[in-house]
Amino acid sequence: MALKVCVGVDVGGTSIKFGLFTNNQDSGLQLLDKWEIPTNTSDAGSHIIEEIASSIKAKIADNKLLPENLDGIGVGVPGPVVDRSIVRSCVNLGWGMLDVRKALREALGETGEFAHINIVVENDANVAALGEYTIVSTRKAYRSLVMMTLGTGVGGGIVIDGQIMSGMNGAAGEFGHMPVLYDETEYCNCGKKGCLEQIASATGMVRLAGRRVPKDTIDRWSAGDSKQLTAKDIFDAMANGDSQAEAVVDEACSYIATALANITCVINPEVIVIGGGVSRAGNVLIDRIKKYYNEKAFSGCKDVEIILAELLNDAGIYGAATMGVTG
Amino acid sequence: MALKVCVGVDVGGTSIKFGLFTNNQDSGLQLLDKWEIPTNTSDAGSHIIEEIASSIKAKIADNKLLPENLDGIGVGVPGPVVDRSIVRSCVNLGWGMLDVRKALREALGETGEFAHINIVVENDANVAALGEYTIVSTRKAYRSLVMMTLGTGVGGGIVIDGQIMSGMNGAAGEFGHMPVLYDETEYCNCGKKGCLEQIASATGMVRLAGRRVPKDTIDRWSAGDSKQLTAKDIFDAMANGDSQAEAVVDEACSYIATALANITCVINPEVIVIGGGVSRAGNVLIDRIKKYYNEKAFSGCKDVEIILAELLNDAGIYGAATMGVTG
Repeated sequence: MALKVCVGVDVGGTSIKFGLFTNNQDSGLQLLDKWEIPTNTSDAGSHIIEEIASSIKAKIADNKLLPENLDGIGVGVPGPVVDRSIVRSCVNLGWGMLDVRKALREALGETGEFAHINIVVENDANVAALGEYTIVSTRKAYRSLVMMTLGTGVGGGIVIDGQIMSGMNGAAGEFGHMPVLYDETEYCNCGKKGCLEQIASATGMVRLAGRRVPKDTIDRWSAGDSKQLTAKDIFDAMANGDSQAEAVVDEACSYIATALANITCVINPEVIVIGGGVSRAGNVLIDRIKKYYNEKAFSGCKDVEIILAELLNDAGIYGAATMGVTG
Repeated sequence: MALKVCVGVDVGGTSIKFGLFTNNQDSGLQLLDKWEIPTNTSDAGSHIIEEIASSIKAKIADNKLLPENLDGIGVGVPGPVVDRSIVRSCVNLGWGMLDVRKALREALGETGEFAHINIVVENDANVAALGEYTIVSTRKAYRSLVMMTLGTGVGGGIVIDGQIMSGMNGAAGEFGHMPVLYDETEYCNCGKKGCLEQIASATGMVRLAGRRVPKDTIDRWSAGDSKQLTAKDIFDAMANGDSQAEAVVDEACSYIATALANITCVINPEVIVIGGGVSRAGNVLIDRIKKYYNEKAFSGCKDVEIILAELLNDAGIYGAATMGVTG
C-alpha cells in the first residue's frame, strides 16, 4: 500500500505554516516535516493560494512522494468560513470573499494529478481547537471540547464528536465578543462595547493595568517604558509578589470565568483548553480561572476539565491536517 | 405497507402528555390523537413508567392498531438525561437515577411484541426545542436552532442538524443559569447568585417589579393582591401604557438579550425560538429582545432570526415523537 500523507496549512497574516504528516491507520497523524513561508499580502493577497500550492508541490517532490500519496489538505485561515470552503473576508490577508477550496484546487490542478485530494478550509481558531482535540483525544475519548485562545485578541473553537462546529456564518466560537463588561466605555475592534476581548486578551490585560495601576508601578513592571507594557510583564510582576499585578490578573480571570460559565451552560463540554500567548503564563492562569469558574458555573457543568493548550503554535497545522484526512 | 405510528410523551410534574402521530414519508409526522394522564408521584414516582406503558398500549388498541404499527416512542423528562436514556434525577417526579429506556422497554415488553420499538429519552426542554425545529423546518431547511423557554424558570435546548445537543451531563441549553447579574444578592434555586432565571423567568420578572416599583403601583397591577402579581399582570400594565411596567420588561429583556448575545457567540445559530408562558406576551416581548440583542450581539451573529414559539404546550409531544422515529 502506498504511503499516505496529508498536509496541514495555517495561514497567518505574517507567515504561512505547513505540516506534512503521515496518516497511518494505527498511529494516526505523525508529523514528518514542518516549514513556513512569509505571507505575501501584496496585490490584495492574490498570490497566497498559488504560493501555498507551489510550496506543497515542492515539499511533496522533495520528500520523493507522488501526488497520489497525498490524501488531503486542510487549511486554517484568519476569518469566518462557511461550507468548509468559502471565507467571507480575511482582513489580515487582504481577502474579500474567496472560495479557498476551489482556488487551491485550481492552483494545484493544471495537470489533474492532485484532483483526487480532499481539501477542507476552516477558521484558524476552530482549526486550532481541532488540533488540541486530536492531542487530548489520544488520552481519553472526549466527545466535546471548547478551546479559548487568549492572544492579541480572544478567539475560540468548538469540537463536537470530532467535528468543528462552525455556525451559520462561521462565527461559532467567537468568544472574544461575548458581552461581559457592562460598564465599558471604550469600543472593541468589533464596533461594540464590553466584549470579553477588551479585558481578557493580552492587550486587554495591559489596558486594564493602565486603568487600575499607578503609572510609576507600570514603569517599574515595564522597565521604564510603560507604552511597551505586555501581559507577560504583568504575570512576571505577579510572580514577584506584586499584589497590584495579582489584582489585574484576578479581574481578567474573573471575566474569563464568567464567559466560560456562559459557554458551559450552552454546550456543557467535557474539556476546556486555554491557549494563545497569555496561556504561556501556565498554571497560575489556569488555577485562577478555575477558582472563579467554580463560583460562577452551573452545578451541572462544574466537572468540566480546564487545561492548558499543549500544541501552541503547532495546533493549527495539526488541526488542519486532521480536517484534511477526515473531510 | 402497514401504517406506521409513533408516540411522543412529555412527562411533567403534574400531568403526562401523549401524542400519537402517523409517520408518513411524504408528509412527516401528523398528529392523530393527543391525551394526558395525571402524573402519579406516589412511591417516589415508581408507577410512572408502568402507567406510561399502559396508556400507550391502551391507545394503540383503541385505535385498532397493532404493536407492529408502532415504530418508536420518544420521552421528554424534567431532568438532565445522558446517553438518550438515563435520567440523572427528576426532582419533580421523585426520581433519582433511572434508565428510562430500559424501564419503559420492560414495562411494555412482557410479551415481546413491543421489543422492536425504538425508545429515545431526552430532557424536556431539549425535546421542546426539537419540536419547534420540526415546525420551522417545514418552512426552511434550518441547520441550527436555539430555543429559550421563559416560564416559571428559564430553560432551553439546542438542535444542530436535526439532533439535540445534550452535553456531557445533559446540561447543554441550561440558559437559565448563565451568570448575567453581577450584583445579585439573592440566591437562585440552583444555589448560586446572578442567574438569568432570576430576572428573565416569570417569577424573576415579578421579583424585579417588587424591587423597582412602589407597592401601591403593584397593588394596582395585581388588583389589590400584590403577592399574586404575575408576569402577565406586568405585560398587561405595559399594554395599558404604564411606563414603570415597561421599564421592568425592558430590564428583563435587556438581560435576555445579553444571554442570547452570549449564546450566539458560542454556536452562531440560524434561528432563536422564544417559548414558555412569558412568550404569550407576543411580539411586544420579541421586539424588545431584538432591540437589545442588536446592541449587544457580535456583528457576525446579528442576522439570526428571533421568533416566537409556535407549538407552546404541544412542543414536547412533537419533539418526543420526532426523536422516537429518527432515533
